[in-house]
Amino acid sequence: MDVIGRCRKLATVSEEAGRLTRPFASAAMARANEVVGSWMEQAGMATRTDAAGNLVGHLPGAELDAGTLLLGSHLDTVRDAGAFDGALGVILAIACVERLRAREITLPFAVDVYGFADEEGLRYGTAYLGSRAVAGTFDAELFALADADGIHLRDALTAFGGDPVAIASAARPDAIGYLEAHMEQGPVLERAGRPVGVVTAIAGQTRAQLTFTGEAGHAGTVPMAARRDAACALAEFVLAVEEAGRARPGLVATVGRLTASPGAPNAVPGQATASLDVRHADDAVRVAAVAALLERASAIGGARDVAVRWEPRMDAPAVAMDPGLVDALAAAAGTAPRLPSGAGHDAVALAAAMPVGMLFVRCAGGASHTPAESVDPPDAGAALDVLFAAVCSLAVR
Amino acid sequence: MDVIGRCRKLATVSEEAGRLTRPFASAAMARANEVVGSWMEQAGMATRTDAAGNLVGHLPGAELDAGTLLLGSHLDTVRDAGAFDGALGVILAIACVERLRAREITLPFAVDVYGFADEEGLRYGTAYLGSRAVAGTFDAELFALADADGIHLRDALTAFGGDPVAIASAARPDAIGYLEAHMEQGPVLERAGRPVGVVTAIAGQTRAQLTFTGEAGHAGTVPMAARRDAACALAEFVLAVEEAGRARPGLVATVGRLTASPGAPNAVPGQATASLDVRHADDAVRVAAVAALLERASAIGGARDVAVRWEPRMDAPAVAMDPGLVDALAAAAGTAPRLPSGAGHDAVALAAAMPVGMLFVRCAGGASHTPAESVDPPDAGAALDVLFAAVCSLAVR
Repeated sequence: MDVIGRCRKLATVSEEAGRLTRPFASAAMARANEVVGSWMEQAGMATRTDAAGNLVGHLPGAELDAGTLLLGSHLDTVRDAGAFDGALGVILAIACVERLRAREITLPFAVDVYGFADEEGLRYGTAYLGSRAVAGTFDAELFALADADGIHLRDALTAFGGDPVAIASAARPDAIGYLEAHMEQGPVLERAGRPVGVVTAIAGQTRAQLTFTGEAGHAGTVPMAARRDAACALAEFVLAVEEAGRARPGLVATVGRLTASPGAPNAVPGQATASLDVRHADDAVRVAAVAALLERASAIGGARDVAVRWEPRMDAPAVAMDPGLVDALAAAAGTAPRLPSGAGHDAVALAAAMPVGMLFVRCAGGASHTPAESVDPPDAGAALDVLFAAVCSLAVR
Repeated sequence: MDVIGRCRKLATVSEEAGRLTRPFASAAMARANEVVGSWMEQAGMATRTDAAGNLVGHLPGAELDAGTLLLGSHLDTVRDAGAFDGALGVILAIACVERLRAREITLPFAVDVYGFADEEGLRYGTAYLGSRAVAGTFDAELFALADADGIHLRDALTAFGGDPVAIASAARPDAIGYLEAHMEQGPVLERAGRPVGVVTAIAGQTRAQLTFTGEAGHAGTVPMAARRDAACALAEFVLAVEEAGRARPGLVATVGRLTASPGAPNAVPGQATASLDVRHADDAVRVAAVAALLERASAIGGARDVAVRWEPRMDAPAVAMDPGLVDALAAAAGTAPRLPSGAGHDAVALAAAMPVGMLFVRCAGGASHTPAESVDPPDAGAALDVLFAAVCSLAVR
């Protein structure tokens, strides 16, 4: 099967002409489920759509009480998306089943391939709707959310063929684990010259908003020694964040948004703001880095007589991959690098209910959430080989 | 005469209720000229409005060929102005004439007190309209400028009682010099604990716009070592600007406006911009500092693989005060500090045609262009003493 070709074909299924946008429970999602469902059926699977709108393809196992291994990724996209984020993992899972059937391998456990209904959160601003239902952690309060047109999630899901009342039926207590292949969305594998990598954890994340308040003044009449320049305090902090990120392997620390006011070329800035985003696979490393940055911000402000306000915005712990699934993927992948994921995935939600493992596939230039997303066919082939071998290895443990 | 009281009274003459806004050639300016003209007449001067709309009070001298010493400042304001910027200098000049008359002193030269019609440029976006006419450098192309209501400068001036056709008649080839008192608009005198200071020069100014272009990326998936973060380059430059300003006495260097894009908390900035404003009384110092900053920006970009674009926006040379007038003010002011002016004044325009000198008066907290502007009565008294003594000293040179 041509995995990359199918990704490209699926990318034409969109609610917008000329670019890929596929929100949760949309008509485009229904068409995508039809297209991908037909591929599942060609691979020998029985298909259904669950109460959360997830597409599910089922391949029976040899032993009734051996449970079910879940494979897959998500079929929804961001606005103006690329062809591979999500789709690649679903299509690789189908190819894996196809290969099991072609080689006439019957596993003891069943295999269910999922095309999750919502990972990106484009329509309702909240991620993992599909995988949360499968994990049994779907919060019924979410049904009251409204999209940009005022349509409530409950009604959108019902119109799509899902079943809000029976959302609990989407849970999979029979699941023995979840394996997901996903494009890396970063440049690590490309730089290492390796087609695939085994994910060790999904990084925890801290977000905060900082406000530096000094004193505005005239750029011509206030001498340097008399200034309390908020933008200079901001600049010191931006470099401190970079330095903190560089100081610990695997840490990423970013100021993505910044402002200075009044913002006139001839005015000394009296106030400046910065967003902060810190991520690491080890929560202790992240928490220590954030604490050090908070202290550093205070020190910068203190030395400049600039007040610093620090507002926490997010504090999400890291999600570890299951050691057994990491080993299975690593054994199948030979000397492939191990790396954390800096972005979230369906595996975050599923980890609440079952062992999870992820395989990253090299992508061009780290480009993600853009039509420029690109994965080479040989890399998709390598990912399929690893996924297939890992799935088979689980049968003989 | 109560100088501060007159400033406060004049501040009620505005085109807006409740706050002071007095644009060039407005009805509020006509009323201000009436009020200030009556004070001039009380001080024994003959008054007129010249072709540019400047209010002029005339005190004859003893010798017909001794020329005319000009005193004054401007009567127009910014929007929501304070009571002292401009007005203080005009009212101190009138008080100086009043004291000459009270002490029955007749100078060899005449004294003309000016209330200039436009220094701030609020209405037409171009400064020094009044003083340029007096300097003989008024460019007739300016008459075609339109204000926010589409009224051309030519028509506004005519309606005000000025005479665009005879604008050259406002020039004063008979002027032997110009002395201006002005609130400092900065914190230097306040910090030095001194009521007045003698201005040595009006600083030259360079403005530029910088753009740093690196590579945008995902804040979670792009490792620190793989980043080309434009905001980090910007931050280094902001601190380099501050360091440059601190390295040379009298230099001020400011990044007042900055941006980073895409500007999302979870995105590594791919592009960032900074405004640059550099001022010094010595052009060579300013030009050298700007050249060093340009080099520094290139080095920062080079080390980070971030492209740097530098767009010049302004390059105005410094205006030196006349050494003789500086000496006259300094002799009258005793041990008063000498300091450059970081902001522009009518003296900039008049320096093209005559020797100019300026006296700064302490203001509270450096506040300027705000209703919070404040000058203490004893400081106005000290300024009057210095101005009066300097004027008298010119008679005996």
